[in-house]
Amino acid sequence: MSTSQPGLSEPFDANVKDTSRVEAFSDGVIAIAITLLAFQITVPTLSEATEEGGLLTALLNNWPEYLAFATSFIIILILWINHHRLFKMLRVLDHNALILNGLLLMNISLVPFVSDLVAEYLRTPSANTAAAIYCLVSLGLAVIFNVFWRYVSSHRRLILGSVPQEAIDAVNRQYRFGPLIYVAALVLSLVTAFGGLGIIIVNALWFALPSRRSEVAN
Amino acid sequence: MSTSQPGLSEPFDANVKDTSRVEAFSDGVIAIAITLLAFQITVPTLSEATEEGGLLTALLNNWPEYLAFATSFIIILILWINHHRLFKMLRVLDHNALILNGLLLMNISLVPFVSDLVAEYLRTPSANTAAAIYCLVSLGLAVIFNVFWRYVSSHRRLILGSVPQEAIDAVNRQYRFGPLIYVAALVLSLVTAFGGLGIIIVNALWFALPSRRSEVAN
Amino acid sequence: MSTSQPGLSEPFDANVKDTSRVEAFSDGVIAIAITLLAFQITVPTLSEATEEGGLLTALLNNWPEYLAFATSFIIILILWINHHRLFKMLRVLDHNALILNGLLLMNISLVPFVSDLVAEYLRTPSANTAAAIYCLVSLGLAVIFNVFWRYVSSHRRLILGSVPQEAIDAVNRQYRFGPLIYVAALVLSLVTAFGGLGIIIVNALWFALPSRRSEVAN
Amino acid sequence: MSTSQPGLSEPFDANVKDTSRVEAFSDGVIAIAITLLAFQITVPTLSEATEEGGLLTALLNNWPEYLAFATSFIIILILWINHHRLFKMLRVLDHNALILNGLLLMNISLVPFVSDLVAEYLRTPSANTAAAIYCLVSLGLAVIFNVFWRYVSSHRRLILGSVPQEAIDAVNRQYRFGPLIYVAALVLSLVTAFGGLGIIIVNALWFALPSRRSEVAN
Repeated sequence: MSTSQPGLSEPFDANVKDTSRVEAFSDGVIAIAITLLAFQITVPTLSEATEEGGLLTALLNNWPEYLAFATSFIIILILWINHHRLFKMLRVLDHNALILNGLLLMNISLVPFVSDLVAEYLRTPSANTAAAIYCLVSLGLAVIFNVFWRYVSSHRRLILGSVPQEAIDAVNRQYRFGPLIYVAALVLSLVTAFGGLGIIIVNALWFALPSRRSEVAN
Repeated sequence: MSTSQPGLSEPFDANVKDTSRVEAFSDGVIAIAITLLAFQITVPTLSEATEEGGLLTALLNNWPEYLAFATSFIIILILWINHHRLFKMLRVLDHNALILNGLLLMNISLVPFVSDLVAEYLRTPSANTAAAIYCLVSLGLAVIFNVFWRYVSSHRRLILGSVPQEAIDAVNRQYRFGPLIYVAALVLSLVTAFGGLGIIIVNALWFALPSRRSEVAN
Repeated sequence: MSTSQPGLSEPFDANVKDTSRVEAFSDGVIAIAITLLAFQITVPTLSEATEEGGLLTALLNNWPEYLAFATSFIIILILWINHHRLFKMLRVLDHNALILNGLLLMNISLVPFVSDLVAEYLRTPSANTAAAIYCLVSLGLAVIFNVFWRYVSSHRRLILGSVPQEAIDAVNRQYRFGPLIYVAALVLSLVTAFGGLGIIIVNALWFALPSRRSEVAN
Repeated sequence: MSTSQPGLSEPFDANVKDTSRVEAFSDGVIAIAITLLAFQITVPTLSEATEEGGLLTALLNNWPEYLAFATSFIIILILWINHHRLFKMLRVLDHNALILNGLLLMNISLVPFVSDLVAEYLRTPSANTAAAIYCLVSLGLAVIFNVFWRYVSSHRRLILGSVPQEAIDAVNRQYRFGPLIYVAALVLSLVTAFGGLGIIIVNALWFALPSRRSEVAN
């Protein structure tokens, strides 16, 4: 491993990342995090299932796990869709963009943990703490994603020449209020865990809603 | 993350997905889900293995785990083969297709959980409940897959221009009765767990049977 | 999901697999299986580590885990190298080749389980049973790999036109005795667990030995 | 699987690896190892969270897990960035390079284990042992990475023709002292666990620092 910062600037420049391998690596991390969410859903123990109500009741009793699973799956899925959209606009990645993307992936890899935390504590007096931590990680995702976008797009630093300025401006408008929503969720979660998580869920579902506009141009 | 729906419609359109990264991401999720099926097979504890019969008996005693593993592996494998076939016909993916594909992946990621559930409860009075939930997730896979296909293929919405209409019609015919088989499995599983699972296994093996027709054209 | 066998044979043929996505999916499964081998290495409990000798002794006491990890890692790595070599010769994959490849992946996904089994039972009276099962899965890998190769290569069924017949013959010669070695390991493991596993390790190391021949031609 | 070394040398040479599939496989292994680091972060048990201080105190009490997670994530991320840089310079991979890359991946797959070990033992009398093993694996990564680079770059054995000699010399200079830093960390960890780990953390953060030099050329 290198102990000094990369600094080649010859015509052949190993530091100029073409985006495809970074996309593939990011996809790998995101795919693993999203798939492993379901591994936190627990199979009821035999003793739980033989109590009054049987297996079905024991399963239904685990509803916070399903709620946390579905919410986290949709959040990561939407993040992936946005990640994919942004990377299509990128020409290359430099060192700083790689590190920012790495921080984003680090945050994504924490989602299964905070998801598990919420599922475990949603029906305890610590629900607010758990929900606030969940909102904090979601906020972290939105903030890092915004910083990443600002970095690559300011003065079109790493943007493909074929991308029109209006497309960049449109993304800027869309992302302007993203972090604010998560700040609101974080604050509300300190009062009511369900309220804070509710904002995140509604926001995610709003994005996932079927679109009536034709978005396919070519 | 975006809080409003994407709506770029410039000549450069970041919402027009080329299919390759979506395929790669889907492959990642499917590969993880299918590989982790085997992690539910338990190594007998030393105390189990020192009981009468030794390790081999203790292992054979876990046969529901192997049955659930093999069945779920083949189901996911077949789903992947079909996913692969469909994506070869697609020109692009729009927002709705991405969300439907995401729902499909969400359902796939649940297969290891329901597989584990069946393995755990197949020899208990809750076998019917476990088998019905397994059939329900399988039915969900078939239904979402059909909705996905109807969406992308109706009026050739997202289909490559080079795909002849007969190929689309052939897929339509093939998929017509898929969900019905899983409905039958679900209903039967409420009466007999083995019956319901049996339908799913026979259906999967039928698909996996060696083909005598030459399918390689080019 | 389809309930009947695919049978399109139009000029556009969705059943004709280009090999790249199958390779990517196979790589995903193999990468997951090989990476998760290390997750079976256990961190000694605090009570184990405070016994006489401390943490280092407790760690060294887990040597069967490290042996199983290293052996299984090398076996899967070699299998991947061979998988990669074969796929470079393939023009397309048909339905049967896809199913055979799927069976190979199913077997690969079992390696972490049997690896865990050997690590757990190598120092117990059940060592022979555990080692035999490990050898059986290894034999299964070799047999399925051979069947896969025979299927795709006989009469050059799915082989690229640019591959010379001598290259095919060379692979045929190399694979001829592979399964026999695993049969020997299986038989020997019933007598001595270390003997059976030893054959597999020596065979793997032999393959991994540095090569003095220049193999890079282009 | 082959039991003899590959030795084809015809114009069509299945042993000549194009680098893309090796990169994809390596990315898969690295992505899995880095994502699973977060799965070692434990959700406090309900009894821990109901002790004095509640959930937040119980979470903060697990700080060694977060430290180990962040450190290991950054180490693997940097290794991936370097792996990516090197592979961009490679024309092909031969048998030996494949095996060396495999050894590197084997070592990477051990990082989650040693990360877990450090998190578990950092506040025990065995902290030095745990930290030393962590440093040892890190040193192993640096050494194998260096051997890999020396092998592929000496006499430009596997280097693309378009890569200027100065780029190779620059990498040589950068990697010269990498292993020495990890030797220092290893030695220091035997005296003070925090000191040894501190060297590794500072070294990683130094690499990850934002760069002011423009590294994007084209």
